[in-house]
Amino acid sequence: MSRILLLNGPNLNLLGTRQPEIYGADTLPQIEARCAERAAGLGFDLTARQSNHEGALVDAIHDARSDCAGIVLNAGAYTHTSIALRDAIASVALPTVEVHLSNIHARERFRHRSHIAPVAIGQISGFGPLGYLLALDALAAHIEGATG
Amino acid sequence: MSRILLLNGPNLNLLGTRQPEIYGADTLPQIEARCAERAAGLGFDLTARQSNHEGALVDAIHDARSDCAGIVLNAGAYTHTSIALRDAIASVALPTVEVHLSNIHARERFRHRSHIAPVAIGQISGFGPLGYLLALDALAAHIEGATG
Amino acid sequence: MSRILLLNGPNLNLLGTRQPEIYGADTLPQIEARCAERAAGLGFDLTARQSNHEGALVDAIHDARSDCAGIVLNAGAYTHTSIALRDAIASVALPTVEVHLSNIHARERFRHRSHIAPVAIGQISGFGPLGYLLALDALAAHIEGATG
Amino acid sequence: MSRILLLNGPNLNLLGTRQPEIYGADTLPQIEARCAERAAGLGFDLTARQSNHEGALVDAIHDARSDCAGIVLNAGAYTHTSIALRDAIASVALPTVEVHLSNIHARERFRHRSHIAPVAIGQISGFGPLGYLLALDALAAHIEGATG
Amino acid sequence: MSRILLLNGPNLNLLGTRQPEIYGADTLPQIEARCAERAAGLGFDLTARQSNHEGALVDAIHDARSDCAGIVLNAGAYTHTSIALRDAIASVALPTVEVHLSNIHARERFRHRSHIAPVAIGQISGFGPLGYLLALDALAAHIEGATG
Amino acid sequence: MSRILLLNGPNLNLLGTRQPEIYGADTLPQIEARCAERAAGLGFDLTARQSNHEGALVDAIHDARSDCAGIVLNAGAYTHTSIALRDAIASVALPTVEVHLSNIHARERFRHRSHIAPVAIGQISGFGPLGYLLALDALAAHIEGATG
Amino acid sequence: MSRILLLNGPNLNLLGTRQPEIYGADTLPQIEARCAERAAGLGFDLTARQSNHEGALVDAIHDARSDCAGIVLNAGAYTHTSIALRDAIASVALPTVEVHLSNIHARERFRHRSHIAPVAIGQISGFGPLGYLLALDALAAHIEGATG
Amino acid sequence: MSRILLLNGPNLNLLGTRQPEIYGADTLPQIEARCAERAAGLGFDLTARQSNHEGALVDAIHDARSDCAGIVLNAGAYTHTSIALRDAIASVALPTVEVHLSNIHARERFRHRSHIAPVAIGQISGFGPLGYLLALDALAAHIEGATG
Amino acid sequence: MSRILLLNGPNLNLLGTRQPEIYGADTLPQIEARCAERAAGLGFDLTARQSNHEGALVDAIHDARSDCAGIVLNAGAYTHTSIALRDAIASVALPTVEVHLSNIHARERFRHRSHIAPVAIGQISGFGPLGYLLALDALAAHIEGATG
Amino acid sequence: MSRILLLNGPNLNLLGTRQPEIYGADTLPQIEARCAERAAGLGFDLTARQSNHEGALVDAIHDARSDCAGIVLNAGAYTHTSIALRDAIASVALPTVEVHLSNIHARERFRHRSHIAPVAIGQISGFGPLGYLLALDALAAHIEGATG
Amino acid sequence: MSRILLLNGPNLNLLGTRQPEIYGADTLPQIEARCAERAAGLGFDLTARQSNHEGALVDAIHDARSDCAGIVLNAGAYTHTSIALRDAIASVALPTVEVHLSNIHARERFRHRSHIAPVAIGQISGFGPLGYLLALDALAAHIEGATG
Amino acid sequence: MSRILLLNGPNLNLLGTRQPEIYGADTLPQIEARCAERAAGLGFDLTARQSNHEGALVDAIHDARSDCAGIVLNAGAYTHTSIALRDAIASVALPTVEVHLSNIHARERFRHRSHIAPVAIGQISGFGPLGYLLALDALAAHIEGATG
Repeated sequence: MSRILLLNGPNLNLLGTRQPEIYGADTLPQIEARCAERAAGLGFDLTARQSNHEGALVDAIHDARSDCAGIVLNAGAYTHTSIALRDAIASVALPTVEVHLSNIHARERFRHRSHIAPVAIGQISGFGPLGYLLALDALAAHIEGATG
Repeated sequence: MSRILLLNGPNLNLLGTRQPEIYGADTLPQIEARCAERAAGLGFDLTARQSNHEGALVDAIHDARSDCAGIVLNAGAYTHTSIALRDAIASVALPTVEVHLSNIHARERFRHRSHIAPVAIGQISGFGPLGYLLALDALAAHIEGATG
Repeated sequence: MSRILLLNGPNLNLLGTRQPEIYGADTLPQIEARCAERAAGLGFDLTARQSNHEGALVDAIHDARSDCAGIVLNAGAYTHTSIALRDAIASVALPTVEVHLSNIHARERFRHRSHIAPVAIGQISGFGPLGYLLALDALAAHIEGATG
Repeated sequence: MSRILLLNGPNLNLLGTRQPEIYGADTLPQIEARCAERAAGLGFDLTARQSNHEGALVDAIHDARSDCAGIVLNAGAYTHTSIALRDAIASVALPTVEVHLSNIHARERFRHRSHIAPVAIGQISGFGPLGYLLALDALAAHIEGATG
Repeated sequence: MSRILLLNGPNLNLLGTRQPEIYGADTLPQIEARCAERAAGLGFDLTARQSNHEGALVDAIHDARSDCAGIVLNAGAYTHTSIALRDAIASVALPTVEVHLSNIHARERFRHRSHIAPVAIGQISGFGPLGYLLALDALAAHIEGATG
Repeated sequence: MSRILLLNGPNLNLLGTRQPEIYGADTLPQIEARCAERAAGLGFDLTARQSNHEGALVDAIHDARSDCAGIVLNAGAYTHTSIALRDAIASVALPTVEVHLSNIHARERFRHRSHIAPVAIGQISGFGPLGYLLALDALAAHIEGATG
Repeated sequence: MSRILLLNGPNLNLLGTRQPEIYGADTLPQIEARCAERAAGLGFDLTARQSNHEGALVDAIHDARSDCAGIVLNAGAYTHTSIALRDAIASVALPTVEVHLSNIHARERFRHRSHIAPVAIGQISGFGPLGYLLALDALAAHIEGATG
Repeated sequence: MSRILLLNGPNLNLLGTRQPEIYGADTLPQIEARCAERAAGLGFDLTARQSNHEGALVDAIHDARSDCAGIVLNAGAYTHTSIALRDAIASVALPTVEVHLSNIHARERFRHRSHIAPVAIGQISGFGPLGYLLALDALAAHIEGATG
Repeated sequence: MSRILLLNGPNLNLLGTRQPEIYGADTLPQIEARCAERAAGLGFDLTARQSNHEGALVDAIHDARSDCAGIVLNAGAYTHTSIALRDAIASVALPTVEVHLSNIHARERFRHRSHIAPVAIGQISGFGPLGYLLALDALAAHIEGATG
Repeated sequence: MSRILLLNGPNLNLLGTRQPEIYGADTLPQIEARCAERAAGLGFDLTARQSNHEGALVDAIHDARSDCAGIVLNAGAYTHTSIALRDAIASVALPTVEVHLSNIHARERFRHRSHIAPVAIGQISGFGPLGYLLALDALAAHIEGATG
Repeated sequence: MSRILLLNGPNLNLLGTRQPEIYGADTLPQIEARCAERAAGLGFDLTARQSNHEGALVDAIHDARSDCAGIVLNAGAYTHTSIALRDAIASVALPTVEVHLSNIHARERFRHRSHIAPVAIGQISGFGPLGYLLALDALAAHIEGATG
Repeated sequence: MSRILLLNGPNLNLLGTRQPEIYGADTLPQIEARCAERAAGLGFDLTARQSNHEGALVDAIHDARSDCAGIVLNAGAYTHTSIALRDAIASVALPTVEVHLSNIHARERFRHRSHIAPVAIGQISGFGPLGYLLALDALAAHIEGATG
């Protein structure tokens, strides 16, 4: 069975405790569990990783080459500052869906630019934890479309 | 039963014939039919409208006040140029999900800015017609969350 | 008796129902009625029109050539995006007073620029419906000054 | 009886002699006299002051706290350069109407930005001396609306 | 016999009456008549349309798919603001020549940018009504080159 | 008989050998010959010059004062960088038509700005060698209009 | 005993009455008294001056040459607009510590730039009246470091 | 007894050896020791950490939630590039004072912008190691003010 | 005999003591004396004034209307920030020569822009006190040219 | 006897015939003759050169190393575009005075920037041919100051 | 024998597998081996390190102080975003040569800016793996020049 | 045997005499001799040319088509201003290596942009005359790779 990497970036380990009026009350483990369930329903295993280290996220994307068919990525604040993550995704050439809990295009101007977007299939932002499930749906459809 | 407005903007009437390498091979009526089906599954009626006229889109948003619980909007090129549409959505105060067939953040710079985003719940871009279905899922969840 | 065109742009048909904390509680027909009354007091007839369509506003300005001595214009969101309206006013060469209900210079940056201003006599913004009456006063004085 | 401060900034003492094709032929004392008359008609006393000194204008705004219900301000060139005046108005929290004789939005680009606007009720520009009378009308209505 | 669409945008219906020092003394019907004559000499029928409505121009471009071999377009003010027109031309994939009566590159800065240019064969600006005839020559040559 | 200067700038001597997918397969002498023929048909002699030296182009424009009634100028890359050429045209006060083989407004951003345009009658770009013939037509009409 | 100049700029005379949610409830005389006390503890006399006039602040800085060993400066709004103050400090070459009651880097963008900073030892912002005391500590240490 | 986190970012481990003309001759352990002493005098324990890894700094801020009442942060070069650190501080909601050894507002332009400032109480820059002690004073006062 | 106003702005009273490596060793009275001598040689009286107050400089320009034929102005730092001075010069319509001791175009970028230049005859910068004498030569020649 | 190079750039050979309302009625030889006379009065020989070729101007500056003590340079349009001229002046290390006939700071924005200024002693602009004489005065004084 | 640090940044561990059309077919170990060989020929030992972690690269530069005479650095994507790396190089004051496999100045605009360049001896970009060897040549020559 | 063109631009003829602290003490003939030697060692003849004329450099690049296999180009100041040189290289389609003696990315901002880079194989900057030898190595390797 194919595997999907669910990769979360800086500060997302604090979900549920951090600014709930912006990011919601769900904790990251709860979200990861729901994602694993949804992935299973779509016929995929799920590996969930989180790090506050840009380099660790790059490493995780590299590692995904060996056993994953695609990536759901919420790069958090690194979305707006990391060209290294952009290059990592381009390097491994795995289909990637970009997710944001809040609607980044409705927030501060510096959150409007995504270095990830140009190398991602698409972007989902503003729907809270539900966004991860929609991203899995979109990624699964993409993988099936490409391989089916 | 509640109703959702599916509103498409300029040039989207040409879907299926227009630059299929960017926008896919589905025609707009096909997409609207699938959306109506998905909406029904979510417990909503669907009104589908399309216009190439900015003013007609504004009118349609105004009309939605009387019978719709929310809007799925692909404003096409007006996304990037129309403050009138932004103000219309803010005026009617209906929850709105923004959809784009292509990943606007991976295209020309002038397509990165959305006048709609600051007044929308969230944005989905890059997944082709599937994006409309995800948008309906997100909108339905939002309406239920607010009213449930 | 001379005639003045009172022309309102997109979303202004919703006045009284739309974001009253920004735009006030008066409806457009109420405002138009008060304007007609003030115009009469100043010795002018008033034609009041509103449209959400940029092209219809251009048409209305063209039409004013045949029977109007001046224009009071609240172009709403098109103020900031429409060069066509600017060119229409320059083409018909009728004295035009620009009005805004809210103080556009105290709101979002994109509302600070007016494409109308360079071809208008002057601009009044921030005084709610009263602004229309002040605009009529100013326009009447201008017409009298030019013709008197 | 309530009092209004009519405050004019740099170079406005030259009115009537200075570039009459832009600023008109009325002298400042003539304008102040007409303003006092209009204020009286609206039920207000008027204090008229003019200075070419930014600091003196700040002082005048501070002084107005003790005996004025509002301010009509033509800050002249300081409109575009003085954050101190902006802060002064915000500090005294008196309702302020911004006036400009010429249509600043139709002149050089550096005259388009107003540091006063974000702390003013509204702005009137382009109508020559008549603008002061309209400003008094608007300010009186505002004060009455707030206190009436 | 092949057909060419001659499409004129906002305010061009006023030609001959509008700012003749910039746009010349010919009326639009006169220009259209001369264009039809030139087109005939080149072996083409001509359909001439004009609208002040951005959406109507988009519609006209869409309609051209069924019976036209190319478009001569003077989008007027929409040249500088309409991405919808750009997308319409890209969608129908008809060869398009962009015309402007005045030399837009010698006027205000905001008239220098054309949203049409990137999807047009070429641009002719500054030669008054003659520009339309040159555009027809260029379009005819292009069509013949492609099909000959 | 009047004379027209056909002036070509840097790298245009390589026409026919240089990037034919952008600039076409005609050599410069072939183009100049066709231009001379068209000029003759319009009742003008033609002097054709080309240089890769900005100063030599300035010199040629100066020389044209003595024996030319107008200039057709393709300044090549100097279009975007040379204020000296702009000043030369303004100095000699000869009517000048600007030509570009490729559609400069559809290429890299730095090719969008023309220093020549503000002092030229008009601009023709994107039609390959045909553009020179159209330019001669436009220039001849302009000269006749001014002198006829 | 050495002397320090405590210099406050426009609107700071209103401290305690002006926007207390931003600037605190202490009046300027209270703050000056506490500063004099702290200065005494550090072995310095204190001269406290305030003006709303940019020129008066420049004069005060010039005067300090004769009897002060350093300056604590809160230039208020002039921080962001006055090159004259910058040049005054550079001219007198007295060590200067820049203070702001509010955190200017967390407020409007136009408050982020300081013309004073490039000629000051350092900047303290955001700590309310306490900032003046910290500034005195820093200035005293600097003077002692330089002279001790 | 309450605890304060003293957190230093990239290259600050080299203090005393690195560009002493800019950063001074004290080593980081010496500075940390003096800070612990000052904190003790203010009634606080001090935890001192340093890392060159952005992610490790984010981790340290997260960890501080469990046992610290506030943070003194010198984020070094990450001040200007790290939105992740900004979000971390906003997430843990601990009062934070920003310190810089050199006067960042007097150095290269790219050092003027701080991503930390908008979520910090205040900023102290330019006073060398003394800045840390002033920061502790300010933080202690803030904590006491909030809790006292 | 005609009179010339020599007007110096902020910090120029410190000449000779202030940053002599940039501004030279001459004091302002010495420079004024030499200017009076040169003016006399040119057939003019000289009034010399200096102020650190922008408003006082505006006042001085206004006063010059009554008895001066022209102005030599070194506005110092206000050159770069004062629109009020620009407007004052435009208002009094006296020929004005702008002088700067240092070469402002070779210094910091913010010193490159002059608000005075657009209303001055010309600008002399970089020649130290000699620049004042050259300015008097130029102004005298201008006045004679206009009146001679 | 020392020698000064008077170097004029593109289009200045047309002086007297070119836009006399901007540049005056004197021809270049007339100006050069008057400059030679003034130079002689100052104790210098004068070499006068003019070219429309940027490279020839660079060559002339190089040549000046062998026999000139300084340069008076009016680089014309190359002032705004030529880094090569800037580098040439820096290379030969001869004192250079920059002259412009018109007041470049009062004209189009692209004429405000001078690449020459940062390597020149000073700049004189706006005084027509008189500017060359003032430049010679300034250069002579500079050379004497350095060598005297 | 002296030692050189060869330091590679993010994603360069994927060399040979990553976008070979941009970065070539050589793996990083192969390149490192060839570099060691070249270094040996130049009389240097080589330490080769790679990390995807910005902080680890900073650490490696710090470590190089103890045993290296210089650094060859390909910072990959961090070239464009890391001020921390710039500061690290400035701190350790080791001569550093910057290398890029692809020609960063011919790629996306955001790859044109290097934070490393201002503190490096020089930059080599666009020659693939050969660039490392050229960098070693240049670094060796620099070290010898400084020490020889 | 193949031939390489070594082409040097403006002011490089002064090498050895010009700002040696930036550009080194070697004269251009010395550098050209060493380059010829290195080229011979690599199996190439060398043609060395230098000009201060942009047009002459364009001509030289055109001429190289007939007898050269590649170009080593130091365009000096034209690097930053000449689109003509860029187009010349693109036209002749010869592999070109860009060299700069100083590290242009560590100097003034206007030296950071290279118009040459987008059409060059790669860029070497900062290594003084050694850079030419490295460029020859790189060019030779490139030619051999393409033809070998």
